[in-house]
Formats: sequence, structure tokens, C-alpha cells
Amino acid sequence: MKPEINKLELLRHSTAHVLAAAVLEMFPEAKFGIGPAIENGFYYDFDLPRTLIPEDLPLLEEKMKAIIKENREFEKAEITVVEAIEKFKQLKQTLKLELIDDLHKAGNETVTVYKSGNFVDLCSGPHLESAGKIDQRAFALTKISGAYWKADAEKQQLQRIYGVVFENKDELKNYFHLVEEAAKRDHRKLGKELDLFCFSDLVGPGLPLFTPNGTIIKDELQKHIEKVCRGYGFQKVSTPHLAKIDLYEKSGHAQKFGEELFQVTSHYKQNYVMKPVQCPHQTQIFASKARSYRDLPIRYMESEKQYRDEKPGEIGGLQRVIAITVEDGHSFCTVDQVKQEVKNMVEIIQNFYTSLGMWDNHSVYLSVRDYEHPEKYIGEASDWDLCEQMLQEISDEMGLNAINHEGEAALYGPKLDFMFKDSLGKEIQIPTVQLDFATPKRFDLEYTNNEGTKSSPVMVHRAILGSYERFMMLLIEHFAGAFPLWLSPVQVAILPISEKFADYAEEVKKALLENDIRIEMYDQAESLGKRISLAEKMKTPYIIVMGEKEVADKTVAIRTRSVREQETLSLDNFIQNVVKKVKDKH
Amino acid sequence: MKPEINKLELLRHSTAHVLAAAVLEMFPEAKFGIGPAIENGFYYDFDLPRTLIPEDLPLLEEKMKAIIKENREFEKAEITVVEAIEKFKQLKQTLKLELIDDLHKAGNETVTVYKSGNFVDLCSGPHLESAGKIDQRAFALTKISGAYWKADAEKQQLQRIYGVVFENKDELKNYFHLVEEAAKRDHRKLGKELDLFCFSDLVGPGLPLFTPNGTIIKDELQKHIEKVCRGYGFQKVSTPHLAKIDLYEKSGHAQKFGEELFQVTSHYKQNYVMKPVQCPHQTQIFASKARSYRDLPIRYMESEKQYRDEKPGEIGGLQRVIAITVEDGHSFCTVDQVKQEVKNMVEIIQNFYTSLGMWDNHSVYLSVRDYEHPEKYIGEASDWDLCEQMLQEISDEMGLNAINHEGEAALYGPKLDFMFKDSLGKEIQIPTVQLDFATPKRFDLEYTNNEGTKSSPVMVHRAILGSYERFMMLLIEHFAGAFPLWLSPVQVAILPISEKFADYAEEVKKALLENDIRIEMYDQAESLGKRISLAEKMKTPYIIVMGEKEVADKTVAIRTRSVREQETLSLDNFIQNVVKKVKDKH
Repeated sequence: MKPEINKLELLRHSTAHVLAAAVLEMFPEAKFGIGPAIENGFYYDFDLPRTLIPEDLPLLEEKMKAIIKENREFEKAEITVVEAIEKFKQLKQTLKLELIDDLHKAGNETVTVYKSGNFVDLCSGPHLESAGKIDQRAFALTKISGAYWKADAEKQQLQRIYGVVFENKDELKNYFHLVEEAAKRDHRKLGKELDLFCFSDLVGPGLPLFTPNGTIIKDELQKHIEKVCRGYGFQKVSTPHLAKIDLYEKSGHAQKFGEELFQVTSHYKQNYVMKPVQCPHQTQIFASKARSYRDLPIRYMESEKQYRDEKPGEIGGLQRVIAITVEDGHSFCTVDQVKQEVKNMVEIIQNFYTSLGMWDNHSVYLSVRDYEHPEKYIGEASDWDLCEQMLQEISDEMGLNAINHEGEAALYGPKLDFMFKDSLGKEIQIPTVQLDFATPKRFDLEYTNNEGTKSSPVMVHRAILGSYERFMMLLIEHFAGAFPLWLSPVQVAILPISEKFADYAEEVKKALLENDIRIEMYDQAESLGKRISLAEKMKTPYIIVMGEKEVADKTVAIRTRSVREQETLSLDNFIQNVVKKVKDKH
Repeated sequence: MKPEINKLELLRHSTAHVLAAAVLEMFPEAKFGIGPAIENGFYYDFDLPRTLIPEDLPLLEEKMKAIIKENREFEKAEITVVEAIEKFKQLKQTLKLELIDDLHKAGNETVTVYKSGNFVDLCSGPHLESAGKIDQRAFALTKISGAYWKADAEKQQLQRIYGVVFENKDELKNYFHLVEEAAKRDHRKLGKELDLFCFSDLVGPGLPLFTPNGTIIKDELQKHIEKVCRGYGFQKVSTPHLAKIDLYEKSGHAQKFGEELFQVTSHYKQNYVMKPVQCPHQTQIFASKARSYRDLPIRYMESEKQYRDEKPGEIGGLQRVIAITVEDGHSFCTVDQVKQEVKNMVEIIQNFYTSLGMWDNHSVYLSVRDYEHPEKYIGEASDWDLCEQMLQEISDEMGLNAINHEGEAALYGPKLDFMFKDSLGKEIQIPTVQLDFATPKRFDLEYTNNEGTKSSPVMVHRAILGSYERFMMLLIEHFAGAFPLWLSPVQVAILPISEKFADYAEEVKKALLENDIRIEMYDQAESLGKRISLAEKMKTPYIIVMGEKEVADKTVAIRTRSVREQETLSLDNFIQNVVKKVKDKH
């Protein structure tokens, strides 16, 4: 579904042309790559005689404003390929000549050019009528970066300038405010401040090391999901991170993942690949013994790392890693059981995200196949039809309002994808439920049906929090690091007013630990103020302070995160409150 | 320490010669490899004109008995290398000629040969005086297998015959009884029967897949260890399975492991290796922020898989795998804290194995360096001296009676190794505590000491159950599959006498599940007898049966594993009993 070019895109793309014209003024020998509209703005790639510095950006902005003031028209012309080659040869625009050649090879005899003052661009448009329609207070150049020509690391490197453009200055201001807020919530920044994960040059990029604090969050999430899923009949399994390539040739993932597979070389005959997904390993547990229809559904779940050889340029923070800890599950069931299985999984997802206060923020896609390219998938068309229909019915029956997305299905079947928004409002897909008639057939999985003959089970794939890395990113940014009590690495900071009260503090500590409450006691040589500020910086849910009065009464004075007032409770009552809230996943 | 050849070895090696003589009678063209004494017996490798079949073994045994009856002498002679070459050329013993050549190259001018009837062997001896000293009722040939000449897969394959030999027939009988008992406890056999783990040809050898039952045992062990260690200040971390080779070049493991490292190839510039140990990753978490003496000891623990490229011929069951799930922990501390840290770890080990009833079965080694080969280790001699002395003091103070083992230290320091016996009485090393001054220095780890300057911490490595795979093997064989209640995958089998009582059975099931008790209900279409036998085969700790009387009284009739009598309890009492036992790790 290619969306129509909307008004904002028109504005943004036209501003890209204005930037190009300004660059031409600054560097007459500049060669131009491409300059598309993107989310919130545009970029343009240039081949320039020198490296840009940040100080160039305000100069270029000034030139752009002058062009806008001039109100230069965007004159469109359709010319023949021959004329175009002539024109851009004359302009010495070698990159554009390559693009004309590409268009010609694709069967075009004419091309469109846009002229605006001295600047002529090869471009299919459309554009604003004239530069004057751009609000000169509503755009800004934001960033310089490198970019390969045609995104190909083998080709020459260009310089890319990014800009943001809105209809008016208030929208621009609002955007910068959002960016600033998002920066405060940035998971890389908070990850470091709250000591949740780290990276090491010796280990390598894309390989996060979870510190004690981060591991607590990961483990609490895992325990919670496993408990919920156990209630729905899921059994935990554990499989290794390697397999012979044969496993993925059989599953179809070898072709699908291709270069994303890490090759593992042994000194003996048998080489391996690192698992890029969990499903094929789990089929082998199903296949390890005879199964009867009475045993179905058989449901496995697993939280293990999988590995994908991502492009180095795309690796960053927890968003894109090469060691991905995936919370994955599969149900092997009969065709008649599929609908109930899917409904159960949707229910699990709904409850999980609701309990985290994140459900409001969701939308659902029904990702179906690309009907024009059946070769991209495995399995039979009739099975696909049945699966797509089932998911549509489930969406209707459960009121999911799933939006159809053609071409977004998995290798083996259609799926329900649940989308959430990150701190910049960008949609990211996390939970998913996928139907799969193809994989069990490929692996010759079978069970004895109630007629005593062999049938192939259906596989339903499900992810609830997807990868722990991506989910933790979402979680950090959603809560700006102030995690719910049950997920907080430290739940209570114990601060005796002075060393005189250290004994009572120890008593309190012991009582809290006995109730599995996670505590922190800072170095008592530090002042109380300093210790309070440390605990606040770590966004600790409860800070308890104790002095003469508390020791005498066996109470604790409590400061709750984000509540200014102080409350005093008996130690027992406080513990009961915390334990109950943790149990209720508050 | 090469031990003296003892009487049994003499007997076993002499019997190997008798076998060789018997083989020569059966195959005059046979070529002889080597035939050493091994535990319980001997083997001999031959190059034969045809493949041996099991039926050959009794024929050879008969021939051996005849030779023993003849009471052939073992005549020793020392001859020159030249004479030996002459002699074995004449006998067409090409393999022996190679061995003579090896001895010659090693500087020997004479060699020893033993003659017994027609059979002449190149052999340093010693032997019994004559074959008649062997008790012909006290030996047996047990197995035929393939073996590479000089254990080199590039060289020709020979046929190996194994035999067992004892001083008298009762000892032989006793040995076969032990083997039979061990076979019943064999973890591969029980692993399949109890559905604990499986292998897949598509995944590959040495890569066990833990099924739901096996995963429960692994998880329960992990939860228990983590809880105990948390009480001693250990914090859980989680690190990936890959790292740049740089990490292991710095740690020294690259040289140490060499070909055991799996190489991981990326399609981009950065290649990786799979982690063969956990320690270097954990140093990087320590290094991720500034540390003060006030923060020490910092203790990390982790249960993650590590990978080693083991020889295919050595892989088998859970004993030797290439995906090894290691429960590993490290304390980073000051020199002054080392002793207490080690003592804590020994205490953890002691409590853990005592609670499993396995402590009686242990012995302790103090594994120190090979003083003649300091090049095999990293770190400074003065640090090694200090560490070895500390461990000796700890052994004395804690009454460990550690036995000194020279040359068994780790790469970076001496260690206390705790040994246990497997079902055949063979010693295996599982828990270990290791001192390490070298690794922190190699990684430039530091903390600010109480004088405000930088110091290097000491690392104490500890494993409690070692690898989950090896430990599970020990556990299965130790308990012959009848695991303690808290580790049993199914704790209670619920068996209504007939379908009439299905409602009450559901009520009981719900109550047990609410108390986190793991249950199984077999297909009620099966007879009660069949269901009881299924539950017994799975070594379920409790089988509860319910009929008219139990429904009326809200009770359950309980059969406890290995107790024949049946007991009736109220459902509540039964649940309380089970919960308490699980909590107490019974």
C-alpha cells in the first residue's frame, strides 16, 4: 500500500530542494544524490569538496531563508532521456546521470526535472508552487552524517544533511520539545544512569551485558510471563544456540535469513550456524517422541538468546542488537484447536500490557501475504486462505479492529501484530501471534488422530514481550526509568538519619530481605541529604528514613517516589503494603 | 606423578598379551598396535583381514583359556634397535616398526620384547611370569570398537577389543553386577524414560534439548542456587555467548583453549568466538563503572551456556556436550577479604551437597601449579605462593583435608576442587573455588582503595554445581531417576478411580496448582492400574487416588514412592505436607 503524497510530505520534499539550492550556492562544484521527505522532515545527500562542520548548518539555513524570501518557483518540465543526459552532463551531475541511466534501463523514455533558480533537479515531484510557501520560521537543519551512495557500502560515501520542517513555528517548537523530552527518556542515557546494562569494546558492539540491575528487570519480566503462560498450559523448554545448517534448510530460514546467519566453524567436520529464531529447535522437542491427539495442544515456551548478523551501521543501544533474548512460545495443536489457542494468546498479551498500563497505546495489524509474490512464502495457498480467514474472524470476535497489512506476513503464515508507540511516537511491533501450517509439514511432525491415523499439527507462534532488549528499551522510555515497584531493581532505600540508628536499620533490612524486598543502603558516611538524592536519582519507589522516633516506635518514615509528603507506618504494615503491591504487579 | 605399576595392572596387561596371542592364532596375518591395561581390564588394537563380529569374542576367550592352561611363559629380552627392526620386519609387524622408529628417535638404542609361545611383542613390560597365573574364570572380553592408530583421525582405523580382568571369579561377578546396576541408572536411558532431554540429528550431536521435565529440574536447581547465593551477596548478571577474540587474547583463554574455541564468522568486518568460559565477560561488567573499596566485595553469578569445540568422538549423553550450561560466579574483593569469601563459598557448596545427601561421597583436592612448567600459567610467582598458602590454611581451618594435586591448577591460580563419585564409582570434579590475582591485572580492573589510590581487586571464581548437564547426569544416576520431591518434574499424580470422580479430581488439581505443586493427570480412559503403573514408571513421589469415600470426606488416599502402604489425609493436610517438604528441599 503506497500512501498518497500528503501536504506535509510535499512541503518537506520542497524544502529539501531549497537546501540543495543553498548548498549549490555555497559549493558550486557540489554533486547531488537524492533528497527525500522523511518523518518530520527530509534529508539530502551530497558529494562535496570538503567535510561539513556543524557551523555550516546556520549558514545554509540563512541561504535557505533568502531563497524562500525570493519566492523562487518550482518549474516542472518533462524532457527526453537524451535531453536529460545532455543537461546533467553539462551540469557535471554524475550521480544524477547514474539515476537517469537507471530510469532509462527501467523503460522510461522521458524524465521529470524541477528547476528553481539556478538549481535543476531530477525529480518526479510533486512540489509546492514556489519556495515562498515554506514558513521560514518552521524549519531547521538538524544533523550531518555520512551515507553511502545508493546505501551500498561498496560505493562512494556522501555527506547527508538532515532537516525538520513543519507547517508553522509552533509545530516546530512542539517537535523540539518532544525531542528534548525523549532525550531525557532515552534508554541509552537512562540505562547508564540507572546502571541497567553496559557495553564493552573487548566484547563488541551489539552485545549488551546486563548488569545486576538490568538482570533483575529481565528476570522479573520473565518470571511474570512464565507464570501467566504456565496458567495457559505452556511448558518451559531450553535449547542451545547452535544447530547444523540442515535445521534451517528444512525450516526455510536459511534462505530467508541468508547473510543474517552467523556461521560457526568447528575444527572438526561439523559446522554450525547460530540460531536466528527459536521455532525449529522446538519442533525437534515435539518430534522427540510419539504424540497422540490426547496430548494436544502441546505448548512450549523459552527465553533464550538468538543471534543475527546485523549491519554494523544499524546496531545501537538495545534497539538493534546482535544478541537478542527472545521470549518465544509455540503451541502445537489440531486445526480445531487453533482459534481457542490464538484467543488465549491474545488474552495473555492484553492482560500483560494492561497490567503495565501500556495497552491504551496499541493498535493491531493483520499481516497477510503479498498476493503478487507467493514465492516469498512457504506452504500451500489453501492453508494460507484458511489461516487469514481465521485471524480475521478472531479480530472480529475479540473486537481487535485489526488493520490489514498486505505483504507483512511471516515466512510460513499470516499473523496478528500488536503495535506500540515509543517515546517519539514511532510505532514499533512487539507482541505477535502467527499461524503456521507449513513448518510442521516441513519437519514431518505428526500425531495420532482420533481415528488412529497420522495427522500434521498446526503451529501457533506467539511472542508476548518480543525481545527483552527491545522491550526493556520501550519500558525504560515509557516509564522514564521510574519502573513499577515489582520491576524496580531497588524497591526500598533504607536511610538511617545517622550512624546512631544503624542497628535499627540493620533490623529493618533483615525484615525486608526476608520478605524478598530488594533494598539498598548507601554508605552511611554520606550525609542524609546526599543519600536521599542518590536514591531519588535511582528513582527508588520507597525511601525510608529512621531516627530516634522511628526506633522507639518500631516504625519507618516513608517517602514515596513522586509524592512529596512523608508518611509514617509500622514496619510490619509497610512490609505488608510492599509485598501486596509487588504481588499485584504494581 | 606416575604411579607404580601394581599387581592388578600387571595381570591386566599380561592378559592383553594372551589376547594378542589368541588373535594371532585366529588371524596369522594380524598386525598389532598397542594393548595397555586400563581401569578394570585392558584393550588391544589390531589391524585384521576382516571386521570382527561379537561371535568372535567367545572363540577368542576359548583360545585364551587354552593358552593360560598351557601356562606359556612371558620371556623378556632386551635387543638392539637394529635387531628389533630385523625381527619385526620378518614378522611383518608394520605398526610395531613405527613404534620402534619412535623409540629410536626418542634416543633409545635398545628395546624390550616379550615372547610368549609364537607371539612376540614390543613391550616395556613388566609381565607375570607365565600365563598360568591368570585365573581363567576371572576375565572376559566385553566389547569391539574402532580406534585410530595413535588416536589420530588422519591415520588408519584399527579394531579394538576390550576385556575385563580380576584376580578371581567373585570379583569378576561383582564387577558385572555393578555394571548391570549402573546400566539401570544410566542417565541416557533414564533421560529418555523420564523424558528429561533429547537430541536431534538436525540440530547436531552434543547439543541437548531440554524437554519440559528436564527444564523443570534445571530451573529448580538454578532458583535454589541463586537464592542461596543471593543470601551471600551474589548478584545475577546476564552476558551474551559471543565476544571478539580480543577478550580472550587479553584473558589468556585464546591460547589455553586454542582449537576448542568455536569461530563465528560475520558477513561484516567483525568476527567473533563463542565464549568458552564466563569470567572475561563478567570482568567487563566490573569495569563498566568506577568502583570504591566500599563497594567490595562485588559478587556476580550467572547461569548461561558456554561453547567448546569438543572432539566428536568424545561427545556423549550429558557427560560431554558442546553446549555447556555453567552456573558460574565471581567475587571481586580486596586481598584481606579473600579468605572470608572462599570460606563462604565452601560453606555454600557444603550446604548444597549436604541438602542433596551427596556430601558423604566427596573428597577435596588442593590443585596447585606444576612447579616445573610455570609457562603454562599466567600471573606472578609471588601471587601464586600467597594463593596456595591461603587455600592450604582454609583447608586446615575448615577441616577439608584437601589432598595436594600438583599441576592441576587453573590457568590463573590454584583451586579447591570437590570430587564426587558417579554410579560406577569413578571420581568426577564438580564444585570448585579458584583464586585469581592475574585476570584482574590483565584487564586493568581497579578500585579506589581507602587511601584514595588505585588497587587491583582479587577475583575468586566459584562453581557450585558446575555445568547443569554434568550435574544432571550425576543427579539422575545418584537417585536412579527418583528425584527428591522439590526436583521432581511431576510431584503428584492425581488418579480418580473412575470418571465418576472427575469433578473432585479437578477440584484437587486446582488446589494443588494454586500451591505451585506440579501435577499430572493421565488420560482417564485408561484403567486405574495402568495409570498407577505409568506414574510409578515416572517415579512420581506421590500418587493420590480418589473414589467415593475420598469425595465424601474431602480426603486423598496417598501412595508415597517406595512406600507400599497407603495413607489417607485431608486434602488440606496433604497440601501443607507437600508445600513444607518442597520448601525444606526434601
